[in-house]
Amino acid sequence: MGTKRDVSRRAILGGMAAAAGAFGFGCSDDNSSSDSDDAALAQASRLASGDLQCDVVVVGAGIAGLVAARALVAQGLSVLVLEARGRVGGRTLNQSLARNGHADRVIELGGQFVGPLPGQGAWPQDKIYNLAAELGIGTFKTYNEGNYVNYGQGLRTTYSSAARVPLDLGTPNLIIALTAFNELAKQVPLDAPWNAPKAAEWDSMTVESWMRQSLLPPGLGPDVPTNHAVQLAVQSVLSTEPREVSLLRWLFYVASAGGLDNLLTTAGGGQDSRFVGGSQRISIAMAEALGDRLHLNAPVRRIQHADGKVKVAGDGYTVTAKRVIVAIPPSLAGRIAYDPPLAALHPRGFLRDQLTQRFPMASVIKVNLVYERPFWRDDGLAGQATSDSGAVRVTFDNTPYPESGSPGVLMGFIEGDEARIWSARTREERYAKVLDDMGRLFGARARAPLGGLQGYYEGLWNLDEWAGGGPTCNQAPGGLIQYRSAVSDPIGLIHWSGTETATRWTGFMDGAVESGQRAAQEVLRALS
Amino acid sequence: MGTKRDVSRRAILGGMAAAAGAFGFGCSDDNSSSDSDDAALAQASRLASGDLQCDVVVVGAGIAGLVAARALVAQGLSVLVLEARGRVGGRTLNQSLARNGHADRVIELGGQFVGPLPGQGAWPQDKIYNLAAELGIGTFKTYNEGNYVNYGQGLRTTYSSAARVPLDLGTPNLIIALTAFNELAKQVPLDAPWNAPKAAEWDSMTVESWMRQSLLPPGLGPDVPTNHAVQLAVQSVLSTEPREVSLLRWLFYVASAGGLDNLLTTAGGGQDSRFVGGSQRISIAMAEALGDRLHLNAPVRRIQHADGKVKVAGDGYTVTAKRVIVAIPPSLAGRIAYDPPLAALHPRGFLRDQLTQRFPMASVIKVNLVYERPFWRDDGLAGQATSDSGAVRVTFDNTPYPESGSPGVLMGFIEGDEARIWSARTREERYAKVLDDMGRLFGARARAPLGGLQGYYEGLWNLDEWAGGGPTCNQAPGGLIQYRSAVSDPIGLIHWSGTETATRWTGFMDGAVESGQRAAQEVLRALS
Repeated sequence: MGTKRDVSRRAILGGMAAAAGAFGFGCSDDNSSSDSDDAALAQASRLASGDLQCDVVVVGAGIAGLVAARALVAQGLSVLVLEARGRVGGRTLNQSLARNGHADRVIELGGQFVGPLPGQGAWPQDKIYNLAAELGIGTFKTYNEGNYVNYGQGLRTTYSSAARVPLDLGTPNLIIALTAFNELAKQVPLDAPWNAPKAAEWDSMTVESWMRQSLLPPGLGPDVPTNHAVQLAVQSVLSTEPREVSLLRWLFYVASAGGLDNLLTTAGGGQDSRFVGGSQRISIAMAEALGDRLHLNAPVRRIQHADGKVKVAGDGYTVTAKRVIVAIPPSLAGRIAYDPPLAALHPRGFLRDQLTQRFPMASVIKVNLVYERPFWRDDGLAGQATSDSGAVRVTFDNTPYPESGSPGVLMGFIEGDEARIWSARTREERYAKVLDDMGRLFGARARAPLGGLQGYYEGLWNLDEWAGGGPTCNQAPGGLIQYRSAVSDPIGLIHWSGTETATRWTGFMDGAVESGQRAAQEVLRALS
Repeated sequence: MGTKRDVSRRAILGGMAAAAGAFGFGCSDDNSSSDSDDAALAQASRLASGDLQCDVVVVGAGIAGLVAARALVAQGLSVLVLEARGRVGGRTLNQSLARNGHADRVIELGGQFVGPLPGQGAWPQDKIYNLAAELGIGTFKTYNEGNYVNYGQGLRTTYSSAARVPLDLGTPNLIIALTAFNELAKQVPLDAPWNAPKAAEWDSMTVESWMRQSLLPPGLGPDVPTNHAVQLAVQSVLSTEPREVSLLRWLFYVASAGGLDNLLTTAGGGQDSRFVGGSQRISIAMAEALGDRLHLNAPVRRIQHADGKVKVAGDGYTVTAKRVIVAIPPSLAGRIAYDPPLAALHPRGFLRDQLTQRFPMASVIKVNLVYERPFWRDDGLAGQATSDSGAVRVTFDNTPYPESGSPGVLMGFIEGDEARIWSARTREERYAKVLDDMGRLFGARARAPLGGLQGYYEGLWNLDEWAGGGPTCNQAPGGLIQYRSAVSDPIGLIHWSGTETATRWTGFMDGAVESGQRAAQEVLRALS
């Protein structure tokens, strides 16, 4: 990375400090990389104000919105991107390790993995990979050497990372579920999951209902299978409990990823690789290219149709345009005031309104602990663990690039019910719990991060106003067969984007790219 | 009703004409009762503007908000009520029959029934009944003489209105379900349904999942039961499909109404009686007493905490107060901008945010056909019908008070999937379909309402920006055990009201009264 890029990156990240700090919350707890006297900051984070005009407004500077903006600019259209936060990247968020003496290293508090890479099988995440490559951002392999750890029924075991599943009492049910989910998912058409042969049945039940009727019943005795591994599979993929999600939605998600193995696997799967410099760099690079077309700290409050144009308004500004792309999660898009209401703009506009009432964000906390070095590797461990209990139930080696022996980073997910419990606690309480959990999985050294609490980083997405949870939105039963394509059907001069609207790798950065490209194409066709 | 009351009622209703007419939609299609040069209108519907102050702001002038405001005013507090619509009454809405030559008669396009009345059993709707009585508004019996009609499997039959259930192939399953739902509901504590012994199981499944595993399997042959009657029971109570709702939520709803029989029964049950002059009169009377404390056409956009006060802002106004009561459905309350965000105001504030992403409005259209006279009575029919097909699957005799031989009114509900289909069609298409359905149930005369299309009235709640569906919000699996009391727990200086927060008769006007009283008590305690 050259100096120029570094400066601009800090600049665009900079606004985050104020936004996150003002009310004592936010997904980053360390903003030491910000540099508020940077000239580029003033430009990139200037507030939209007054009456502006352009061809197309893009709401949201996550990957989807930036991809759409980039595509439209490339076609010569005038574009303004309005971002609510003081930073770009949406649900990707880099975190500098400066406070641990590693100012040149970055970890992530949001979405980070990429895989399979092009060439790795039939279902690669080629869209995000190729975009990153165009932007000069490379990838590196997720550390995956040695054994995995599993903690179940009070017992800690290790097993080869080449094994498909951990061996504990949950294994029989996990194998049943893996097989069944993959088979059923094959019957779900990606462009119209509501047309699956059994759509009416699958969208009438939760994943937990399927588990209760299809798995070996748990809890009948000490040698009888439990279903915790299946539960963990759902939690680790969606950050939601199996009770919350429609079976059809889950099968669509599995199909959209090319199968459950892609979702769960590291080498050659969805967690195969990471982006050099952190996944947020992708958004930052696109934002740099957009220059002053991007406005930070500019939440959109209202989208008005008037005189054949669309007026997109926030606190103190209005932008008049020919079209608008709303590239934020459906749950948040529902909080914008539409004038006239969506129901008045199209005979089926009310379906989009009702859909936004039924497409909630999951619950997640992502934690990172920074150590002097990746000590678990000395024990022959990959840093990956699964657990049937505790707050942290899935971990990864998240040591930043380039690796040089120091530091080492363990990352963990707190998901679903646990995320709701621990989001309500203090940072200190979470830290103590995470140390306990990591200690149980990786031994005493895991309890001593660099500088204690200073070595603890957390992404509190449930507390982030502009996320409302994380990592993605899921549908309860009925969501797909009742609302079908309302998540992406244009209404009036409004087009919808965001990874929740994608057909392939929905919920992932790759799906975000697809959705941004698709929305841009819609707009280009409409304006040609 | 004296002249003064009539004038004021028209005045407060008046603003509706502009709101509903501007974008060609709205829950009333006849606003001939409005009288825009009325002096009282200017007062009651004046727009809030500038900087205002009071002790307590109430958001929403439905029954809950008006009850809260009334209770606070009675204690000497200064109160301002801010209503988004150009009328009061929320999900109650009167409709004059003036265009059919009956300017003195009113039907309803929203909630209308009251029952059991005080004295009718152990679980009366005493709160709404007593409130109406205080306001001088009496009740009259829902017409319930003669036989009911049932249409099933292509066959129209009639049966005594004294029978508990219609006799068709769905009856065996309906009896199983009635018995089971009532038994299970007894195990659900009204103040904490998430503490039911089987809460974890019941809140992990949909009502449809329960039906699939507990009822006699339908569709195996012509003489085998179907479950349409159970489906219709859920549809007619919640206006939702059984696939959309958590079993625990459904059982809580049943418990909250004192049992399923109360929900389904006319004489002595939830549909026992109606309010003279229409249910909206209750809100109109409370609004009259509030006088210029009420501001119509004043949607609240933002609730800000600052300097120990709460600032409630809309388009062009800000009200500073000690407390605010948000008395609108949770799905709509989630669309207000909170500054700082709810998550920053209380450690569990994020739960309220996530709850509002998961508490959607159901889907409903309510239709009324006006006839020269209630001809079905001549055939010995009560005007009540059930059907396993068509758009309208439940009907009532909705002839307005006082009855004098003319007119006669048939009312029908279009619910769930059917409401989503028909909300997207034109008024003319719906009219034709409703005529077909009513004709099938009540014969050829049902196809000839007064003046044709002029005799057709519809409440299109799915298209109403300030409802987003109807009649009430329901929770999918997980909603109760994950979010517990977040629907009503105060956050900062904000208190929550609305029938969705009630413990007894939640979803009903009676629950709205309970919730308004409870919120007012919270505020009084906080300010004392």
